[in-house]
Amino acid sequence: MTCSTDADALRRADAVVTVRSADGSPCPGTDVLVEQVRHGFSFGNIGFDFVGPANGEHGEGRENVFGGADPEAAGALEALWLDLFTTATLPFYWAGFEPVQGEPDTRRLRAAAAWFRERGVTVKGHPLVWHTLTPDWLREHSDEDVETIVRARVRREAASFAGLVDTWDAINEVVIMPVFANEDRQNAVSRLCRRIGRIPTIRLAFEEARDANSAATLVLNDFDLSTAYECLIEGVLEAGIRIDAIGLQSHMHRGYWGEERTQEVLERFARYGLPLHWTETTLVSGDLMPAEIEDLNDHRVGEWPSTPEGEERQAVDVVRHYRTLLAHPAVEAVTYWGMTDQGAWLGAPAGLVRSDGTPKPAYDALHGLVKGEWWLPPTRLRTDADGRVAVRGWAGEYTVSAGNASGAFVLRPDRTPPEVTVA
Amino acid sequence: MTCSTDADALRRADAVVTVRSADGSPCPGTDVLVEQVRHGFSFGNIGFDFVGPANGEHGEGRENVFGGADPEAAGALEALWLDLFTTATLPFYWAGFEPVQGEPDTRRLRAAAAWFRERGVTVKGHPLVWHTLTPDWLREHSDEDVETIVRARVRREAASFAGLVDTWDAINEVVIMPVFANEDRQNAVSRLCRRIGRIPTIRLAFEEARDANSAATLVLNDFDLSTAYECLIEGVLEAGIRIDAIGLQSHMHRGYWGEERTQEVLERFARYGLPLHWTETTLVSGDLMPAEIEDLNDHRVGEWPSTPEGEERQAVDVVRHYRTLLAHPAVEAVTYWGMTDQGAWLGAPAGLVRSDGTPKPAYDALHGLVKGEWWLPPTRLRTDADGRVAVRGWAGEYTVSAGNASGAFVLRPDRTPPEVTVA
Repeated sequence: MTCSTDADALRRADAVVTVRSADGSPCPGTDVLVEQVRHGFSFGNIGFDFVGPANGEHGEGRENVFGGADPEAAGALEALWLDLFTTATLPFYWAGFEPVQGEPDTRRLRAAAAWFRERGVTVKGHPLVWHTLTPDWLREHSDEDVETIVRARVRREAASFAGLVDTWDAINEVVIMPVFANEDRQNAVSRLCRRIGRIPTIRLAFEEARDANSAATLVLNDFDLSTAYECLIEGVLEAGIRIDAIGLQSHMHRGYWGEERTQEVLERFARYGLPLHWTETTLVSGDLMPAEIEDLNDHRVGEWPSTPEGEERQAVDVVRHYRTLLAHPAVEAVTYWGMTDQGAWLGAPAGLVRSDGTPKPAYDALHGLVKGEWWLPPTRLRTDADGRVAVRGWAGEYTVSAGNASGAFVLRPDRTPPEVTVA
Repeated sequence: MTCSTDADALRRADAVVTVRSADGSPCPGTDVLVEQVRHGFSFGNIGFDFVGPANGEHGEGRENVFGGADPEAAGALEALWLDLFTTATLPFYWAGFEPVQGEPDTRRLRAAAAWFRERGVTVKGHPLVWHTLTPDWLREHSDEDVETIVRARVRREAASFAGLVDTWDAINEVVIMPVFANEDRQNAVSRLCRRIGRIPTIRLAFEEARDANSAATLVLNDFDLSTAYECLIEGVLEAGIRIDAIGLQSHMHRGYWGEERTQEVLERFARYGLPLHWTETTLVSGDLMPAEIEDLNDHRVGEWPSTPEGEERQAVDVVRHYRTLLAHPAVEAVTYWGMTDQGAWLGAPAGLVRSDGTPKPAYDALHGLVKGEWWLPPTRLRTDADGRVAVRGWAGEYTVSAGNASGAFVLRPDRTPPEVTVA
């Protein structure tokens, strides 16, 4: 059994749009310009680089705890970022967000989220609960206090960002969470998860986040895509915990997985009937990490340059990966993990843009899909005698203009054809 | 944190036994002989070899579907088997047990179970539900019928063997069950598990078996000891399914794991507070299987002889493995998987006895533990003025005799000292 089909057949729709004037009457024989303005599919990337600029910082800002370009470089990235992506993931790593207990970085992250929203970008928060980058101060608390503090942290972020951030990785990497051993001293979140169990820890995160922001899309996210994650998901669903999407990471520092493996992952996780979000996708444009590295954090190199051959490979692979993902009906979102090589995780040449700010071939290749092959170019049409035009377009948001008047419509393959009033 | 302690400290107890005569009065200043007759700990092995002899078959019997010696050779094994083990696992592989629908091999397996019981051996059944060795005829039934038939099979075996077989691997290898792909045509149990989910499949097996034999000890058994099995167990416990023991396989055809890995497995699975049964332990006395073999069934060799070096290694390793397991308080049972090399799974020299019926060094080494180091030898003592003797012995069953009179007591480290009437 395969669930795959071509992205085109799946995500494009024929629609007959009726154009009406302000008084409701159809506009027959009228020249109109139809333009796609946004994808319905969520094309995401991290927005870590823009937290500084959004706060008017010029080098003096807080350090980005998980990479990201410096504020000067970030400014130059803005146009490239906004031309390709619809959804920004912002960093809520607890150790960086609240380095001193009771002093969360809320104001600064709110400014960053608002900056994206003003530019038409949806914002996602990552992550509410995770064992890595847990603040050291949490470790000093008792077992019971740790649970209370974790609950309060989830509730606080979900509530104070509601309306700005309505998608969250509610909890990250639970498969390894209670047995995570790649650290000198056990962190408090692993301790909690080991004590109460994986499923109660997941319940805690989803329960508090849902309660604080009932409109939020809450994602269970993991890098472990083995049968362990299946078993965990089945336990979560049996326990009656409502999750809105299954998050699948694909940090491919060791090389592109290929269509067959990707398809196999898609089919194993699609069978739960939940949307799939590819949350963290990386393809490097330099040497590949050796295949025997298990925890990617264990691979540290002095220099990891982007190379011409690596950049060509990355461009080919990014197209193959996105084509495979968009051809599967369960996939609702793909987030690329890194705009620029500057400050990238592990120093890897994982960005779509080089450290000097110039786009790599992978940027152009992905742009060729997202704004080319999968995008309706501005199209001039003439309405028929009943004011109708036939549009075949990708799921998303469109404008229709006639002279100085304009209107908007949303195209979805699963919805009835739209009507649009041009005024 | 470590839960380990020495087997001696854990499984031996000091007890003051009061010896009384038939009228209840203590027997002061009396010479008594204290003898251990059985271990409290479950030392198991498969009993597949004895199904034929127990049924008086001499070569004309049904083929053993999962290995085992021929009836003639099995006879010679009896004394060796009975001198070392307390618990026999009998084969209920469905394809062999019911090759034609509606014609189960109940009578023959009942005779085998009774044969063991008459010899003081506890009997365990393996397995009630498993995707491998599912009968082909099951595949032809509809999804709904498959579930009904599986339920009925579990109920039938659990009920018709109650009193003879009161320990069952209720379900086997569920981690891989729904995604099991090492077969030409998908079997019906994998199909069922994929359709309804792992946890509902486990619930089905435990529910039916429990209902049919409320006294049974029901084991969840797997070879996959990765975090996947942890996730599965946590889901099962969250779902409120009562399991009596966690079964851990250790087929070490690729070499002994070593104490560190074994200890790590013990600690990860002991944290659920359930007894641990090491259900299928194998150590070969010949060449090791290459480490890269994932599914042991994929390794087929023409000849796989037992070698002198291999036999020495096996003897050392079996002692190391059993010492590690018995030193952990959660472990209640260890089942070695194979008495003889004759007819052994995969043709491996996995037995404790060679194909010619002579014991290997591993048999003697294990015997040295089970009936030597961990066994109270017959001990002559004299009761004090109040009829008491001090006994330091291993958990298990004992007899006390004085002249022609004798009595019995059970020694358990967690129980109050026994009283024994010698009559």
